Amino acid sequence: MAVYTEVSDVALKGFLTNYDIGTLRSFNGITEGVENTNYLVHTDIHSYILTLYERRVDKNDLPFFLKLLEHLAAHSISCPTPIKSKNGQMLGELSGKPATIVSYLEGSWVRRPSPHHCHEVGAALAQLHLAGSDFKMTRANALGPASWTELGRDTANHADTVTPGLRTEIAADLDNLVRAWPIDLPAGIIHADLFPDNVFFIDDQLSGLIDFYFACHDAFAYDISICLNAWCFEPDNAFNITKARQLLRAYENIRPLSRAEYDAIPLLSHGAAMRFLLTRLYDWINTTPNALVKPKDPAEYIRKLRFHRSVTSPTEYGLDER
Amino acid sequence: MAVYTEVSDVALKGFLTNYDIGTLRSFNGITEGVENTNYLVHTDIHSYILTLYERRVDKNDLPFFLKLLEHLAAHSISCPTPIKSKNGQMLGELSGKPATIVSYLEGSWVRRPSPHHCHEVGAALAQLHLAGSDFKMTRANALGPASWTELGRDTANHADTVTPGLRTEIAADLDNLVRAWPIDLPAGIIHADLFPDNVFFIDDQLSGLIDFYFACHDAFAYDISICLNAWCFEPDNAFNITKARQLLRAYENIRPLSRAEYDAIPLLSHGAAMRFLLTRLYDWINTTPNALVKPKDPAEYIRKLRFHRSVTSPTEYGLDER
Repeated sequence: MAVYTEVSDVALKGFLTNYDIGTLRSFNGITEGVENTNYLVHTDIHSYILTLYERRVDKNDLPFFLKLLEHLAAHSISCPTPIKSKNGQMLGELSGKPATIVSYLEGSWVRRPSPHHCHEVGAALAQLHLAGSDFKMTRANALGPASWTELGRDTANHADTVTPGLRTEIAADLDNLVRAWPIDLPAGIIHADLFPDNVFFIDDQLSGLIDFYFACHDAFAYDISICLNAWCFEPDNAFNITKARQLLRAYENIRPLSRAEYDAIPLLSHGAAMRFLLTRLYDWINTTPNALVKPKDPAEYIRKLRFHRSVTSPTEYGLDER
Repeated sequence: MAVYTEVSDVALKGFLTNYDIGTLRSFNGITEGVENTNYLVHTDIHSYILTLYERRVDKNDLPFFLKLLEHLAAHSISCPTPIKSKNGQMLGELSGKPATIVSYLEGSWVRRPSPHHCHEVGAALAQLHLAGSDFKMTRANALGPASWTELGRDTANHADTVTPGLRTEIAADLDNLVRAWPIDLPAGIIHADLFPDNVFFIDDQLSGLIDFYFACHDAFAYDISICLNAWCFEPDNAFNITKARQLLRAYENIRPLSRAEYDAIPLLSHGAAMRFLLTRLYDWINTTPNALVKPKDPAEYIRKLRFHRSVTSPTEYGLDER
């Protein structure tokens, strides 16, 4: 839940004179987005999202994110498209913050994804990976395995207060994951955070992908593993192989997995669970009680971590025997 | 800042099947409104506001508010219009809360009102008073002078922690106000909370009035006095008689004040300042540090109270000598 920065009518009108998007009709602070301040802006032409970037986003990364969105939109990916100012700029300043205007995507995210939704997201992920392949800029994954060791250390002293024995459990897994982590899988632009709240549907048709602020250069199959964690577990944390099969088949219809990627899926999925467990644990421990954003419970990812640890074959994720 | 109650895509779609307003395209929790949860809903036909009523609004008052909005909209007042369900109902239930859909008003509120904006609001207030004159339902003003004595008592022990001497200052004023309060002024439906954030403009033209959840039956001139407090003081708390003159003249062009109303303006304005001081003081004292809604500083109204106490003639508000 956001709107950290208030924008006045006069300031917004002034800002909009830099753009060819019509005259302001109304604007409302919206509660989506935990990293930034977002307003839904109606002009006499269309709807737009105004984003003010708050401290959690590194300003040096903004050109990468905005040019990536522009590139993807030009390659038929339905995503927020940055609107250029009359001077050709995608990044401006408003209320003392870096600010952009992007197109507003209609659609809403699905609270209880069905196998059909998983099929749709698998296809969209493969299209995203292909569309990003000739994007020229790059950005390292700041939340890759190298960061996990550090997050493990930073959370070690409090891990057992969340679940007894968690500190040892994390340390043992981390050792194994970091040692075995593959470094030569097919790689390119990945979304790295394609959870259900970042995928919009209209009438069960996927209408767009949002929130590319974790996008980076990393293994495509790792992006799949993040989606397996995010889309294919039930509320009771049981793994739903039907959903996973739908997601993987739709992906492979567009971009088949190599043998190495196929073999790596269990390890990558285990690692993806570790990544979200560690960042949730960190936020859980470090969030003050009166913070605007409520941290997500890390417990969900402890159970996912244990599931992945028990897996012995890619077929357990719904992949066909090879 | 709101969204207290989360609404799922499936629940909203189900709710919308009760209405003839098209199919859902998107919905966003918006940060406006401190009493209720509000979503901006796009369908393939239009934009709407979905409101879920939280505890602070008395459910028994909802028929009054909704029928009032319907009445005003039918009398050419631009305000949110309740959309009736296929069964003719204005009030439904969603996520366990009473819920309504109203039309979305384009426009944005003015952070720094000019004399021109005050002129517009004065005219709109008079039109509102006339439009409400044949509305059949009634609702007492729960925040009239009778409630001030109670609020004064409830805040007495903490008033001096806000400003030394405030307890005595309030008690003396309260005594005078309650004793002198006029009871036979022309009365009818008043908005009772027409602050700048409840009045929308597009290109400096007033486009609508919102937030009728304090509307009640009371003296029309008291509503004017609330507006004088809300619109005609500068950020440094100096009274701007030019703005007041614009507001009053525009009002009187449509609904001239009687002699009794004219004479009562200083007292009513003093009382209006007391009402907002007391409720702000109460919220200031009783809000927990991690509440979603930040209470408004009561200090602004202490200074307004002192201004009104010093006034000796209605002409000091910009009214012409009579």
